[in-house]
Amino acid sequence: MASCFCDKVNIKEAADVAGSPNDALISSQDPRHPANLICTLCKMFYYNNWVTGTGGGISIKHPGTGHIYIAPSGVQKEQLKPADMFVMDSTSGAYLRTPQSYKPSACTPLFMSCYKQRNAGAVIHTHSQHAVMCSLIFDKELRIANIEQIKAIPSGKKDAETGKDINLSFFDTLVIPIIDNTAHEEDLTEGLQEALQKYPNATAVIVRRHGIYVWGPSVDKAKVYNEAIDYLMEVAWKMHQLGIPPDCGIGEEKKYL
Amino acid sequence: MASCFCDKVNIKEAADVAGSPNDALISSQDPRHPANLICTLCKMFYYNNWVTGTGGGISIKHPGTGHIYIAPSGVQKEQLKPADMFVMDSTSGAYLRTPQSYKPSACTPLFMSCYKQRNAGAVIHTHSQHAVMCSLIFDKELRIANIEQIKAIPSGKKDAETGKDINLSFFDTLVIPIIDNTAHEEDLTEGLQEALQKYPNATAVIVRRHGIYVWGPSVDKAKVYNEAIDYLMEVAWKMHQLGIPPDCGIGEEKKYL
Amino acid sequence: MASCFCDKVNIKEAADVAGSPNDALISSQDPRHPANLICTLCKMFYYNNWVTGTGGGISIKHPGTGHIYIAPSGVQKEQLKPADMFVMDSTSGAYLRTPQSYKPSACTPLFMSCYKQRNAGAVIHTHSQHAVMCSLIFDKELRIANIEQIKAIPSGKKDAETGKDINLSFFDTLVIPIIDNTAHEEDLTEGLQEALQKYPNATAVIVRRHGIYVWGPSVDKAKVYNEAIDYLMEVAWKMHQLGIPPDCGIGEEKKYL
Amino acid sequence: MASCFCDKVNIKEAADVAGSPNDALISSQDPRHPANLICTLCKMFYYNNWVTGTGGGISIKHPGTGHIYIAPSGVQKEQLKPADMFVMDSTSGAYLRTPQSYKPSACTPLFMSCYKQRNAGAVIHTHSQHAVMCSLIFDKELRIANIEQIKAIPSGKKDAETGKDINLSFFDTLVIPIIDNTAHEEDLTEGLQEALQKYPNATAVIVRRHGIYVWGPSVDKAKVYNEAIDYLMEVAWKMHQLGIPPDCGIGEEKKYL
Repeated sequence: MASCFCDKVNIKEAADVAGSPNDALISSQDPRHPANLICTLCKMFYYNNWVTGTGGGISIKHPGTGHIYIAPSGVQKEQLKPADMFVMDSTSGAYLRTPQSYKPSACTPLFMSCYKQRNAGAVIHTHSQHAVMCSLIFDKELRIANIEQIKAIPSGKKDAETGKDINLSFFDTLVIPIIDNTAHEEDLTEGLQEALQKYPNATAVIVRRHGIYVWGPSVDKAKVYNEAIDYLMEVAWKMHQLGIPPDCGIGEEKKYL
Repeated sequence: MASCFCDKVNIKEAADVAGSPNDALISSQDPRHPANLICTLCKMFYYNNWVTGTGGGISIKHPGTGHIYIAPSGVQKEQLKPADMFVMDSTSGAYLRTPQSYKPSACTPLFMSCYKQRNAGAVIHTHSQHAVMCSLIFDKELRIANIEQIKAIPSGKKDAETGKDINLSFFDTLVIPIIDNTAHEEDLTEGLQEALQKYPNATAVIVRRHGIYVWGPSVDKAKVYNEAIDYLMEVAWKMHQLGIPPDCGIGEEKKYL
Repeated sequence: MASCFCDKVNIKEAADVAGSPNDALISSQDPRHPANLICTLCKMFYYNNWVTGTGGGISIKHPGTGHIYIAPSGVQKEQLKPADMFVMDSTSGAYLRTPQSYKPSACTPLFMSCYKQRNAGAVIHTHSQHAVMCSLIFDKELRIANIEQIKAIPSGKKDAETGKDINLSFFDTLVIPIIDNTAHEEDLTEGLQEALQKYPNATAVIVRRHGIYVWGPSVDKAKVYNEAIDYLMEVAWKMHQLGIPPDCGIGEEKKYL
Repeated sequence: MASCFCDKVNIKEAADVAGSPNDALISSQDPRHPANLICTLCKMFYYNNWVTGTGGGISIKHPGTGHIYIAPSGVQKEQLKPADMFVMDSTSGAYLRTPQSYKPSACTPLFMSCYKQRNAGAVIHTHSQHAVMCSLIFDKELRIANIEQIKAIPSGKKDAETGKDINLSFFDTLVIPIIDNTAHEEDLTEGLQEALQKYPNATAVIVRRHGIYVWGPSVDKAKVYNEAIDYLMEVAWKMHQLGIPPDCGIGEEKKYL
């Protein structure tokens, strides 16, 4: 984390907009309501240099209603307000709320792929420079092994007894697929869906020369995965600068120095 | 963004100064009034290491009155107050307000060139180290291609139907002219004006060993362009460190590693 | 320090939870009470990129009661609340307070080793990338000499008259042992205890491809040691990038450039 | 600037301590009073990674009384309170106020040299890593030329008419002497005084493998010089990494790439 964000989303303001049609969908005093949380997280991401210049995006599925909240496209992410949110019915895909003067996010079909194919609870898309650099250095996959932070990432397996996600172990190799970018963000959908099928355990996809998509069963998990993966992409980039392959065996580093 | 800024411009203080001659020009409760917004943005830029050591500057044209607001020269940018602002009549070029004990910004003729030749709504000038490093690495132009963030930058073309700006596409090459610095900032005007003519689609000019000027039709657009270009200059510098030309074709990166 | 944290732990909230069994142990208006201080420090560490993605941990021994406070495992460190703390009796090792829905930190046996073998007052564990990079570059020890910041680190010797800790001098070499990581954090205990015995003057142990453990006689000292060591690991990494061994003699740097 | 600081010095608290002997010297509601300003600046410096681990120091001469305010040694710089300040009579060198439980700064004789030999109004000492890296790369002097930010640094010459300081021009070369470190900070005094004599125009001295001392006729000027010099040391270090000598002629950069 390069920085902090000091201004919590203005919840009072959120409540004040109630009154317009369907504004009840985005008016809540609860800081964890998706309409509020998207604002808080986008501000945080902005100060990490992940969504500057209107880049990136985020979507959260309301755990209660199942409605899908999506930040609009082409707006300054650190200045988002709850009233700026699009809200979609997750079954029909129809917009329940469309803010005037904004376009739906070009990421919407990509978010929907993660919701449908992975039963995601939230999807984070950043223009992280660590993702861009890794996509220039590596070919079809980022592979990094034997770093403690890997243990924050799910393996895709579930505990037979509890049904809970089992995370990767220290000795595992984290594999993140890298797909090629397209001229229009919505055209990425096919590549993303292919990667989702080919890498059934992946919780993220790097888009070459573009950024990364990270998802999880809840917004908290998606946030943690995104932080851990960004940390690991930064380490992979630094290892490459030293000449060490990020997936090299423990004890083999010195022969590359 | 390396950081945050926590102290919003003190609007109450801004209002308190009203009473002095012409202080009505800089006294507003509206955080988006140019006199307030310049303070907010300069604080933000300071914590990004763009305007430390009194470097850099900014000017905003008031969208209503057309008056041009300019931060003074040689002052600590993170400590600006609305009362510090120069205000100029955009037609006559006469100062409507001149704060005592400050000098007009040495950038003023450069800001005016952007207002006149490009019909700018705001001009941002930073001493960004990414601009300085790119100006040392590259010769007459920074060229960077096939990076998603390029899509935040206008192409110079307009949509025939809507008249709206069309931005660059992912497969385009962003070209930013690099002009040589001069002993005195005001002497840069000629070089800037030449670049404006030679690169009619450019929304920024890098000044070698100095920094960058970025403008846009509104302060919001100028801010977004400046963020996106700074991100791209950082990526270009990192690509150069890896040996990859920033405008190389997709898929050709690996042959440079 | 890459950043700041703006939200002090909400002390009022801390007081409000009193009422549940044993919540008196974590309810205090004193910002320096371990239950409050752990929250404040974790937020600070988070914005330094030391404990993102739920990584890292911290434990403080209450200077009055001797109770040991430990942050839970697998939680977002910047969002910790006093009510999240585990509290342990330092003599019996029995938990005096166990928050529902959290797991005790996997670091607990490592923290206990520092308390017992070194009479620590606090132990800080981060996933600092400077520690990870140093553990890739160096073999069994990080050795860095002749840097002023070394003087913030204790030498292990005590002043014969006052009994106070004597810190390293500028001409000394700071030696930090590097131990290998294990699949499970608790299995690190053996390696840590060996390092504590072999390096009786060390106030920190780097864990390869993982992070660092730093302790001190008080939480303030542990915090200062952790900051100074992180600074020195960053310098060591930068020196390595220039080709200069971090423990080279003064005046010998240029022959490596 | 890597970061921000959000907590202004608590002026109310400052006023509350009045009552103890000589506490009137450090009790003021004015945020620009040296006792308050030292706290504000140290917090800012801390979040720039300049004074972590209790490193660095600062001293301000009260423009009215001439008393010299000095932050204590070995304390966490981001947590300083006005009551922590030492106050010295600038003529006699006698302490007018000595906080219990603190040691006077080891930098004191160095600060005094700048006050006496240069008529300084304030002296800033940081452990900036950019200073440390430059001191490893360069020998007796840091020389950097033809960078706009140089224009924030005084040339040592004065305008014949106005008596005001004349700053360096863009085509000038900034020269900062580098002196060797000593075991004890107070023993640096001789080396600093020699450098002050040998470089009568210098406004800063780098201490090898240690940090930098920067002074100016006022605390505002010292702060600006320190920011501009840190920026320039960072640029010099980055230029060295590209193979470009920081004082090379304009247009000669490309032959080093």
